[in-house]
Amino acid sequence: MNSGPALVSILRQGDTLVASVHTALDDSEMVRFQHDLVRQIGEHRARGIIIDVAALDVIDSFASRTLRSIADIARLRGAVTVIVGIQPDVAFAMVCLGMDMGEVPTALDLEEGLAYLSRLRGLGSSHG
Amino acid sequence: MNSGPALVSILRQGDTLVASVHTALDDSEMVRFQHDLVRQIGEHRARGIIIDVAALDVIDSFASRTLRSIADIARLRGAVTVIVGIQPDVAFAMVCLGMDMGEVPTALDLEEGLAYLSRLRGLGSSHG
Repeated sequence: MNSGPALVSILRQGDTLVASVHTALDDSEMVRFQHDLVRQIGEHRARGIIIDVAALDVIDSFASRTLRSIADIARLRGAVTVIVGIQPDVAFAMVCLGMDMGEVPTALDLEEGLAYLSRLRGLGSSHG
Repeated sequence: MNSGPALVSILRQGDTLVASVHTALDDSEMVRFQHDLVRQIGEHRARGIIIDVAALDVIDSFASRTLRSIADIARLRGAVTVIVGIQPDVAFAMVCLGMDMGEVPTALDLEEGLAYLSRLRGLGSSHG
């Protein structure tokens, strides 16, 4: 199951976890990613999570549901999740098929995602 | 397909795109407008989009659905969309026909739309 190059890399940057999905994940890989990420929230005391899906040219209903679940689970563990890098064609397809990211905030790319989290943090603490 | 004066102009103002629809668009023009706008979100790193429909004296179900789709797609790309300039008669007709803009925020005119976006931004950043 875990052969070849990593399908997802999870890097820590301060109290933010940046998870980059490098390739399309099948359903079991998606679930594994979910478990890894949620575990690392506790390990690293993460307050923000960025999931970068720029490498994905398809986000199907299972993937979008799993991403929403990750965000919900992360929220219960005290972290805010931002999805970044949804490609234009992927966004078209998702909307045509009636899928969305629900309440999960989205941003154009990693840079905007980090900016979003730092704005949130600025809101929460005056001198954070 | 693209002869004569522009049917829609898309101007950038800071990190906001202002799209003015100058004339009634048929269905294929509407889809083309959708593609152009979504492409420009990435190009200009737009965080806000204002679609000005003041010149339209009819918004049919396809147009309103397309406008909602644009807003959904834009959100997946990290931008907030505001529809402005819906004429009184158009608003009457839309409500009579059971159409609406769903979750998409609306404002009276361009000025109010810009004010809405800058309030949103003020909410997100203390000194933005």
